[in-house]
Amino acid sequence: MASTLSAANYPASIAASTATKWPGLIEAYRRYLPVTSATPVVTLLEGNTPLIPAPSISQRVGRGVQVFVKYDGLNPTGSFKDRGMTLAISKAKEAGAKAVICASTGNTSAAAAAYARRGGMRAFVLIPDGYVALGKLAQALLYGAEVLAIKGNFDQALKIVREMAATYPVTLVNSVNPYRLEGQKTSAFEIVDVLGRAPDWLCIPVGNAGNITAYWMGFCQYHEEGKCDSLPKMMGFQAAGAAPIISGKPVEHPETVATAIRIGNPANWEKAIAVQQASQGEFNAVTDAEIIEAYKILAAEEGVFCEPASAASVAGLLKVKDQVPAGATVVCVLTGNGLKDPETAIKNNDSPFYQGVEPTLEAVAGVMGF
Amino acid sequence: MASTLSAANYPASIAASTATKWPGLIEAYRRYLPVTSATPVVTLLEGNTPLIPAPSISQRVGRGVQVFVKYDGLNPTGSFKDRGMTLAISKAKEAGAKAVICASTGNTSAAAAAYARRGGMRAFVLIPDGYVALGKLAQALLYGAEVLAIKGNFDQALKIVREMAATYPVTLVNSVNPYRLEGQKTSAFEIVDVLGRAPDWLCIPVGNAGNITAYWMGFCQYHEEGKCDSLPKMMGFQAAGAAPIISGKPVEHPETVATAIRIGNPANWEKAIAVQQASQGEFNAVTDAEIIEAYKILAAEEGVFCEPASAASVAGLLKVKDQVPAGATVVCVLTGNGLKDPETAIKNNDSPFYQGVEPTLEAVAGVMGF
Repeated sequence: MASTLSAANYPASIAASTATKWPGLIEAYRRYLPVTSATPVVTLLEGNTPLIPAPSISQRVGRGVQVFVKYDGLNPTGSFKDRGMTLAISKAKEAGAKAVICASTGNTSAAAAAYARRGGMRAFVLIPDGYVALGKLAQALLYGAEVLAIKGNFDQALKIVREMAATYPVTLVNSVNPYRLEGQKTSAFEIVDVLGRAPDWLCIPVGNAGNITAYWMGFCQYHEEGKCDSLPKMMGFQAAGAAPIISGKPVEHPETVATAIRIGNPANWEKAIAVQQASQGEFNAVTDAEIIEAYKILAAEEGVFCEPASAASVAGLLKVKDQVPAGATVVCVLTGNGLKDPETAIKNNDSPFYQGVEPTLEAVAGVMGF
Repeated sequence: MASTLSAANYPASIAASTATKWPGLIEAYRRYLPVTSATPVVTLLEGNTPLIPAPSISQRVGRGVQVFVKYDGLNPTGSFKDRGMTLAISKAKEAGAKAVICASTGNTSAAAAAYARRGGMRAFVLIPDGYVALGKLAQALLYGAEVLAIKGNFDQALKIVREMAATYPVTLVNSVNPYRLEGQKTSAFEIVDVLGRAPDWLCIPVGNAGNITAYWMGFCQYHEEGKCDSLPKMMGFQAAGAAPIISGKPVEHPETVATAIRIGNPANWEKAIAVQQASQGEFNAVTDAEIIEAYKILAAEEGVFCEPASAASVAGLLKVKDQVPAGATVVCVLTGNGLKDPETAIKNNDSPFYQGVEPTLEAVAGVMGF
């Protein structure tokens, strides 16, 4: 199923340039962002992540549809959260904050810690006691996060970090921080810059619904500036066990292998509905089995290892592929790096693992089928 | 210790461009590589990894020295191996190979599997039985590697994969594959392209000594082409428990936390000595304690999470910092992503982790010191 990519598969605009000078997304898109010359830019040169052609997925969709994956797992801390965090932390520093705080067990806490520490600030992370495996926190801890596990649930942790930020000189960098979405919208800019146009469809995993909102902001802003002539249909995909936007009501106990989108009551619910309507897009649910199937196709055919939640975008595209117009250009957003979750890779691969093979040429050749 | 990076810290050449069109390293550096129009390019858009200013490490070195880290852990499979593998796999495909093989328990097997599968080939990986934790193989297995664990040691595995490649239509993609170094040299090109010159020093971890050889090839080639006026002093650092080049004899049982450079008898030993002499560089050993200290500084002050082996370059620089000329530009190579080895992060962080905190504003504020 996999096929080879040659330069000929690229739009001319991609192959034309070999520049390697990327200053980070704030400097690259300064005029579109709420920064001034007084803003101290805290950057790890995030952004500018590869838009990788996906020939195998394209072939599965068929009818000349060209699919790309926006591999945001290659950001410095391994997820799209870096886009929002470079801006949120820079603005916190501009405002004189000495510390930031968030309630998060995953990608947000890692990004917050890395950028805060780089900016010379302390980073506090609140989590529910006993809720989180230490492995999930390894990255944030190494970055220097100070972690507090409270005797309570995630909602209580969220409530306390909001109160802390309202009462003490600590900046809240959870998703309610408005700079997060401003930073995240730059991924839409990059897609248009590389394709030379907006895609016809954008497929994206939906949890808190912030990222779909941010991409739409980015496409609309570029459209207003004349950087693209059209806008994509925004196709949002939730995990079936955590699909409040599809069912129309909050999910009390969301459950899915796609932990990064395991959210029962999205913070940006209304905004996401507005995006769907404005873009004539759709929300759909994909099952865990469909997510894992897409996750395996991405790795074993395209060579791209993403978080399970990321694969929801590809699972969704494959689910509704008959709706894609012939010849359309489709971008699927992959939000996180698969290395964040090795357990899922171990549990779900189909690869043969032969043990106890005799250490001879004949034995090895035999197992290999020669 | 950490300070803020603003655009003003960059050489002018960096901040000038915001292009995002990177076609992968073969297309970007086609004229410097052994490819023709007949070569089917198998790419994940590897390369073009960030050269991140390291203000905190610069400050520790002092005297106006400017330190950058070349964060090659942001390649598609999480290590510098992707640079060599895109070329090795493309050339294997050009030669009509249907399968590739390597003996590797780490980054090489992951890169080989990802690129081989993307190129439509099978990927075989030989490892010693019982030697490897399944977690280390998770990535290669998800990419679709077919793994054979032999009843023997790593040297026997290496011998068998060489025999397999000599006897059957299977291409060997271990480090003896000559295209690997050709691909790896492109990182030197990128450094010169971004800095606008060669650095004064290049600090690099040394295991098999292939990468130091490749970087030197790259700098020399660019120098001959007039892309840079000078050549860097090549500073190679081995782990003290696996330092055959420093001691002058092979190490039978190499031991170090830096598993990616745990090699007792480097394949490119003689080449590396030649590089050291030609560049008037040095080899030095760094202890595991020094490696871990650098690893923690990189994460908690610079916000960069690398593999322990990668941190050997920074540990080495800090060890010999008094030798660096005042005002020099130094690049430290970080070869792999820290997410590849979460255990080391869990074992070695200094971050406070408070458990059982009462879920009240007062209790949390108290723990935080407000």
